[in-house]
Amino acid sequence: MTEWLNEVPWDKDGLIPVVTQDAASGRVLTLAWMNRDALAETASSGEAVYWSRSRKKLWRKGEESGHKQKIREIRVDCDSDAILLSVEQVGGIACHTGRASCFFRKLENGRWVTTDPVLKDPADIYKKK
Amino acid sequence: MTEWLNEVPWDKDGLIPVVTQDAASGRVLTLAWMNRDALAETASSGEAVYWSRSRKKLWRKGEESGHKQKIREIRVDCDSDAILLSVEQVGGIACHTGRASCFFRKLENGRWVTTDPVLKDPADIYKKK
Repeated sequence: MTEWLNEVPWDKDGLIPVVTQDAASGRVLTLAWMNRDALAETASSGEAVYWSRSRKKLWRKGEESGHKQKIREIRVDCDSDAILLSVEQVGGIACHTGRASCFFRKLENGRWVTTDPVLKDPADIYKKK
Repeated sequence: MTEWLNEVPWDKDGLIPVVTQDAASGRVLTLAWMNRDALAETASSGEAVYWSRSRKKLWRKGEESGHKQKIREIRVDCDSDAILLSVEQVGGIACHTGRASCFFRKLENGRWVTTDPVLKDPADIYKKK
């Protein structure tokens, strides 16, 4: 039952961009990437698994921070080249900076201005390493 | 005053992925791409301008359909490699299929299932061509 995976036109690197949205707040949390294995495991495990382009390996979101993303919905767009996840964000923090969303800077008068507070010090989030 | 544009680490094709969200409903409407010119024009004009990877030219959203996207906010993520637009979607239709959002298919029991209605026949949307 992997026909649905075959319908994704993986790019030349075998990836697809993935938008992840908080099911409760509606905030867009992250833009990340998946390969076929990541999407298959996301669907089967019920938790978001991405492909880390910098580390070149599967990235089980929250494996270090505890900030897992529990899947509510998986959607695909009209030309099947983007995925949208609706998730329950464990801990209410998606960003490695300790903020709710990675999109914490807003363009104002020609400058990127930080609008969101740090909810937890990253030193505390990652201290178990 | 283009320093904010220089902070974007354009990919090897000179592009960045852009998530566009409806300011009113919170729905994610599209995942598209911008080059530097598209982002600059989006900011200066107040309407979404993308880079069409298939047509290889600037794509002023709504130029044919009338379904423009009026910019409320432009955000960038923590590592500056994704943009988030909050928009007022003119006509309430973002997708070329005549649906509110391009993410109109949901994974259910191993199949992509269409969940959203067509609000306007594409033949009517694009009949002025």
